Amino acid sequence: MEIKSYLKEQRLLVEAAFDSYIPAATGDFAKHIEAMRYSLLAGGKRVRPILCIAAARAVGGNTIDDQNILPVACALECIHTYSLIHDDLPAMDNDALRRGKATNHVLYGEAGAILAGDGLLTWAFDLLCNPSHGNLDSEKKLAISHCIAHAAGSFGMVGGQALDIASENTRFPFETLQTIHRSKTGALITASVVSGAIAAGADREQSEALKQYGHQIGLAFQIVDDLLNATATTEQLGKAAGSDIELGKATYPAYFGIEETRKRALNAIEKAKTCLKDFDDKAQPLRLLADYIYTRSH
Amino acid sequence: MEIKSYLKEQRLLVEAAFDSYIPAATGDFAKHIEAMRYSLLAGGKRVRPILCIAAARAVGGNTIDDQNILPVACALECIHTYSLIHDDLPAMDNDALRRGKATNHVLYGEAGAILAGDGLLTWAFDLLCNPSHGNLDSEKKLAISHCIAHAAGSFGMVGGQALDIASENTRFPFETLQTIHRSKTGALITASVVSGAIAAGADREQSEALKQYGHQIGLAFQIVDDLLNATATTEQLGKAAGSDIELGKATYPAYFGIEETRKRALNAIEKAKTCLKDFDDKAQPLRLLADYIYTRSH
Repeated sequence: MEIKSYLKEQRLLVEAAFDSYIPAATGDFAKHIEAMRYSLLAGGKRVRPILCIAAARAVGGNTIDDQNILPVACALECIHTYSLIHDDLPAMDNDALRRGKATNHVLYGEAGAILAGDGLLTWAFDLLCNPSHGNLDSEKKLAISHCIAHAAGSFGMVGGQALDIASENTRFPFETLQTIHRSKTGALITASVVSGAIAAGADREQSEALKQYGHQIGLAFQIVDDLLNATATTEQLGKAAGSDIELGKATYPAYFGIEETRKRALNAIEKAKTCLKDFDDKAQPLRLLADYIYTRSH
Repeated sequence: MEIKSYLKEQRLLVEAAFDSYIPAATGDFAKHIEAMRYSLLAGGKRVRPILCIAAARAVGGNTIDDQNILPVACALECIHTYSLIHDDLPAMDNDALRRGKATNHVLYGEAGAILAGDGLLTWAFDLLCNPSHGNLDSEKKLAISHCIAHAAGSFGMVGGQALDIASENTRFPFETLQTIHRSKTGALITASVVSGAIAAGADREQSEALKQYGHQIGLAFQIVDDLLNATATTEQLGKAAGSDIELGKATYPAYFGIEETRKRALNAIEKAKTCLKDFDDKAQPLRLLADYIYTRSH
């Protein structure tokens, strides 16, 4: 299996699912929904949805029905996209560029962008809790929704972003940086993997292994993001490079330098793959995804 | 039954439940959770939670376990509070005062307030989808979560707020005002009633009657809000009076004048009570709540 073609194929699967699971920009709320769709469809690697699908297939292989996993995958991308829209706001990171395109508030105004974010976050739960989508039993749907809500909220992504903003231009211990990374980025990545596992009916051992895999790749993902922000150009990133330094944000490279940071990313990737030791070939995409996260750092 | 003592008793019940269902401001995310709690605990009539509880008891009376309905009631108040925090932001209505107190962004900054809102919205679904709270079956919890997500989102509250903001200082037909009211305010009020009905295991006829009751009191509630904004003082409101005119917002009084607007509110209240004609004395609080909404206009 070649990771690039796998990623492209899965990305196209997720993007095709948006047609089924994301409202069209018509009717009374057309302009608002257009703002939501603009950011959702503005590209991106679709890492979280792909992790969710890959985790489900690592457990259940081809017995997993797309209709059961794609609404979850789309909901994860809605939540990720909303977080980017709100993070980019003038009151937060004040970014004008994202994935090489104008950020939401540049096009739709601050109020429009705040509401586009609110709309995407709420739509995620509309999707996850919709009894009409797929045929997972209610208990599983509820467990998935709870797992994602907890990871996306005040003890996960939102709390991490609050801590990140509050920590700008302050000196703080490395433990605080770990807390920020684990909550702001790691929690939703872990939930992406775990929600796929729940959908596939993973047993307790499989779930725990996939959760630990999620923790490790979440950590690696954030370390690599820090590295890219420090070393890549704005053109390569599609967003402002070096913005972490400008905003006075603590990062892995600021603590450890570039080389040691790379080693730590690689270490997390190796640990992630070790978590999959009891899985068979159906988990191969998860192994390749782990490697892929590290290769982004070069 | 006296409505004022009923409302006070129910309000205290809901506020006591916050201790069980809303996180304490401790730990890594203390400051962020403090911002969430500040607005949640800043007072308010707790109309949505009380409607939810009253609707459940209209169906099931005292057989309804508090443990099953209070998490839903608290989640509704979290969603309502988040919408106020985001509506008050400088990019939206730019209000410095709410319930006689400083608005969230005045105290916690714009970024802090955006994240406090995001946190409360997400916490609502964490609560609603938590398998550990109460003993409602998963199917009911999922139906309640979906009902509330749909009402709070892009086809309900968020969409209505987007339309409201977009319509400032423009002339638009009365139908658009109705759409704004129905979505921005009416949808979550209706969902409050319907979610109570679902929790209590209402049959199809009861659910439909309670839904129509919700529509009518939602309409009345918004008309009365328009009236109060036009006629009450800032001191009476605890927020800036006359702000609708200042922001160039269309309102019922702007279309119909004060007296005709009052008549329309009263008409909606009468229709709401008619929806309850097949309910027994257990629905008495819902009838009194309808009357109470109208008396706020004087």
